[in-house]
Amino acid sequence: MESITRDPLAFGVGARVTLSVMSDRYVEVILAAVDAADSTGLILETGDVSTYAGGDEQALLRWLTDLTQHVAATGLHASVQVLLSRGCPGEAICELPGGAGPRRVDAPRGRHTGSFASAEWALYPLEDIGSDERTPDHMREIYAAIDTAKASGTFVASEHFVTKLSGDLGRVLETVVAAWAGVGAHVQHVTSHLTVSLNSPSHAAGAETGAHA
Amino acid sequence: MESITRDPLAFGVGARVTLSVMSDRYVEVILAAVDAADSTGLILETGDVSTYAGGDEQALLRWLTDLTQHVAATGLHASVQVLLSRGCPGEAICELPGGAGPRRVDAPRGRHTGSFASAEWALYPLEDIGSDERTPDHMREIYAAIDTAKASGTFVASEHFVTKLSGDLGRVLETVVAAWAGVGAHVQHVTSHLTVSLNSPSHAAGAETGAHA
Repeated sequence: MESITRDPLAFGVGARVTLSVMSDRYVEVILAAVDAADSTGLILETGDVSTYAGGDEQALLRWLTDLTQHVAATGLHASVQVLLSRGCPGEAICELPGGAGPRRVDAPRGRHTGSFASAEWALYPLEDIGSDERTPDHMREIYAAIDTAKASGTFVASEHFVTKLSGDLGRVLETVVAAWAGVGAHVQHVTSHLTVSLNSPSHAAGAETGAHA
Repeated sequence: MESITRDPLAFGVGARVTLSVMSDRYVEVILAAVDAADSTGLILETGDVSTYAGGDEQALLRWLTDLTQHVAATGLHASVQVLLSRGCPGEAICELPGGAGPRRVDAPRGRHTGSFASAEWALYPLEDIGSDERTPDHMREIYAAIDTAKASGTFVASEHFVTKLSGDLGRVLETVVAAWAGVGAHVQHVTSHLTVSLNSPSHAAGAETGAHA
């Protein structure tokens, strides 16, 4: 069992990403971003709706940051959809023995990108089989994750169904990946969904590089 | 308690939608789609990352179909992100008394749009407090939802973390909204996330109106 939690692919650690660039040049921008992003340590599978990336949490955060920073740096308005999942490998069903988890990792570390992002975030602690001794308490996990966001300075507000984040793109991504991995220290199966807005015409003047008034 | 399950806003029935149009004309296209979509029976709140819509399942499906059909009809490549939630009103915490649910509704009915869509879908049965007598079994709910998709003809495959759907845009949306509401007949808190691709350059020749080879 121990070896499964140490193997990110066996444990089902991965992401799906959809990049949407609001420009006639979207094809070249997206292809250039994918080409520029460092996918060392990851398995990638590209589809027409999203790209799947499998590998450990730190590699995923690095790749997501590279990909989105590249798009943000063009100055074009873009939306990025990220799905994160760990603890439920396989497809329709979770192909993990009960009690295999949870998987504990050091908090993934991000970087400053110099680009402003706003985002809406949802976090789902799911399968408690394999969780540690503490009584499964999903609201406690959600509160801990929101505290992570507040400590990082990216928390804006709680809204219907999501938590609003904003700040440096790299710090927003780091908040989300770290919180997801952190909840995963107690809950085997955790997913998270994130919608990021880059270079939005709505972003307030005074925000970091790349924002428009 | 009964009155809460009959009031969609009190029960937290709603959606968040992000439209991303991959064209220099994205502002006019998005504004026109929002303007054209029938929001009767819904409360809308627009933000820089997504628009929130609160109201019953049938009204949400109609509005989502109007919005996305309008975008699809332009022939422009676009991505649509949909988050659906019911059974957990409020923001950071679920402001519902334990045992308030579940909320049972007739299966929402969609319509044929004439536009082809491919999509990736995730469905999360969450809070079992308030579920009916059956032993909470999330995998049973997921399988039932997948069966709904197979019966509707929109099921393509199970992939890492998501179910792939494709077919008429209206039927894809109907599949997802109906499955979400259907799981909600047994589980109080259910969310679902959907990424839809419209007019993708990757869509195979021979697919319905709007696809590109």
